[in-house]
Amino acid sequence: MTGTLSSHTAEATTPFELSALFEPVATEFKQVEESLRSNLVDDSPFVATLLSQVFSTGGKRIRPGLVLLSSGATLGAGAKFTQNHIILAVLTELIHTASLVHDDVIDKASVRRGQETVNRRWNDKLAVLVGDLLFAQASICLARLQNPAIVGIYGQVLGDLCAGEIKQMNQQFVCQVNWQAYMQKSICKTASLFSAGCHSGPILNLAPAETVEAMRQYGTNLGICFQIVDDLLDVTSSESTLGKPAGSDLAQGILTAPALFVLQQNNAASRELETLIKTRAVSQPGGAAVALSIIKDNGGVEQTVKLARNYASKSKDALKLLTASPYKDSLASMIDLLLERTH
Amino acid sequence: MTGTLSSHTAEATTPFELSALFEPVATEFKQVEESLRSNLVDDSPFVATLLSQVFSTGGKRIRPGLVLLSSGATLGAGAKFTQNHIILAVLTELIHTASLVHDDVIDKASVRRGQETVNRRWNDKLAVLVGDLLFAQASICLARLQNPAIVGIYGQVLGDLCAGEIKQMNQQFVCQVNWQAYMQKSICKTASLFSAGCHSGPILNLAPAETVEAMRQYGTNLGICFQIVDDLLDVTSSESTLGKPAGSDLAQGILTAPALFVLQQNNAASRELETLIKTRAVSQPGGAAVALSIIKDNGGVEQTVKLARNYASKSKDALKLLTASPYKDSLASMIDLLLERTH
Repeated sequence: MTGTLSSHTAEATTPFELSALFEPVATEFKQVEESLRSNLVDDSPFVATLLSQVFSTGGKRIRPGLVLLSSGATLGAGAKFTQNHIILAVLTELIHTASLVHDDVIDKASVRRGQETVNRRWNDKLAVLVGDLLFAQASICLARLQNPAIVGIYGQVLGDLCAGEIKQMNQQFVCQVNWQAYMQKSICKTASLFSAGCHSGPILNLAPAETVEAMRQYGTNLGICFQIVDDLLDVTSSESTLGKPAGSDLAQGILTAPALFVLQQNNAASRELETLIKTRAVSQPGGAAVALSIIKDNGGVEQTVKLARNYASKSKDALKLLTASPYKDSLASMIDLLLERTH
Repeated sequence: MTGTLSSHTAEATTPFELSALFEPVATEFKQVEESLRSNLVDDSPFVATLLSQVFSTGGKRIRPGLVLLSSGATLGAGAKFTQNHIILAVLTELIHTASLVHDDVIDKASVRRGQETVNRRWNDKLAVLVGDLLFAQASICLARLQNPAIVGIYGQVLGDLCAGEIKQMNQQFVCQVNWQAYMQKSICKTASLFSAGCHSGPILNLAPAETVEAMRQYGTNLGICFQIVDDLLDVTSSESTLGKPAGSDLAQGILTAPALFVLQQNNAASRELETLIKTRAVSQPGGAAVALSIIKDNGGVEQTVKLARNYASKSKDALKLLTASPYKDSLASMIDLLLERTH
């Protein structure tokens, strides 16, 4: 399963299992994919080319899929999907992609340290701009919805994404176990956008307040679970699966659940791990391998799986309020599919 | 005048002449200055520190000043400034500052080419984030206004800022004179935000459609004039006034009005200038100095001043519709003050 969910091959690289879940919204999903490439800012073909390039490099489109399923699951009796549901799904993916593009600028800067060429600088300049362009496109979509509540929700998401990145920077290489900081960072960096995507559709649908709240809970807990599973895979997966070396979070001093569970043990293992982190040995391939072994040998993986299951369970509970539908079934299956990655 | 408008000394480095224009909105201006530093995204003191640092490095606050004056000039009978006018002024300056911060990331990247340290990379990372943070704060402000029309206007501004930057990149070192491209770039990069700031206050005030349109015209033409004067000063000013070497646009192959007027002459001067640009000699101090002399000796400055006056005149015409008030007087004086920089 892991390999499938992480694969990047074609345009929307939605793997088979996810495609099956998105089946109830297949028509709308296709419209979203086309709209992602629309140039909303001007009539320049260059902007259209940039957008086309960004969205042809793949992406599983989990977030727009969730927007469509949450919208479908809360449509009023006899109501159908509207253009606004499509716009909502599009802007959710635009914001996600924008934040990835800006993360990329930062990461590339470190990779090519000391050997920057004019050509590379040109690309950096474009990447900062393309990220801003995607945020701008998202803002234009948001404006088209003409819904002040949703403008407020997504405004806060933009703040959360930045705050999450800053929280993560402030915690790098800090070995003192702080679960609250870890959870807050996960909510800001990941769960906030999941939550926005899952409860804004119900708001568009004028769903009852308790339905909106249930979908907010579903999205938040699914997002936290998603981040925990991502953190776990950084420890348990291979480079071929991840597309980057295993332990790359650890190498950057980003301490996630698997490491935190070991660090809080106050024993020989925790002290050895702490030394590897504090001396920056984790940033070297040899040290990273030792640290990953310590984590795996001392229950870091098992306890993290348990933590992920806990949030998965909360997410599933939130769905109880919904009436039965293929959309609801897919929302539930999404949780199971996510947990399968931990196997 | 030039020296005063360009000085950077304290917090809001509004020079004396501008302060006098902002006198009718002095109380509101102070509230804006305080609000710029409010952390709207979370409760982290670090975010507050970042914002405080960004806004303590100066800035003339022309855009929020214009928002307040335009709002004041179109208040209904007996109406007073509200918190929404302050928020509008704040978000306008937030967007301007965010775009400057991202420009900075790009510029700094070239300055420290090949000598990047971990400390410098850290700063780059922070600068991308801080720009995003400022855009996020602006989005949160925008949401608080609960006004779909204004959300739409500012969404388009974000798109214009990116489109303008991309248009500029596409025209670098292109010697074929294209006035339309130059004007479009100036509108996107500068006039769009001026326009948004000047006509959104009237929208908040529920001013008549023709008043809103007049203020949009005022802002657009003032913004174009502002950009032309800025382009002119890059040719006519000294490094001590500009805070960067004269001719730095030209050195980057950014061809603005003064150069375009000479390039279109199809004579010995235009051919010499074209050669300096095409061979990238303008990117060296010696070549830049020769190019600046050619521009000055062949009427590039005088024709640019005339162009600026043309837009200044259109901007002033747009004010005729307004009833007399100290706010209107200041809006008119703003145009004169801007033109004084060309002396």
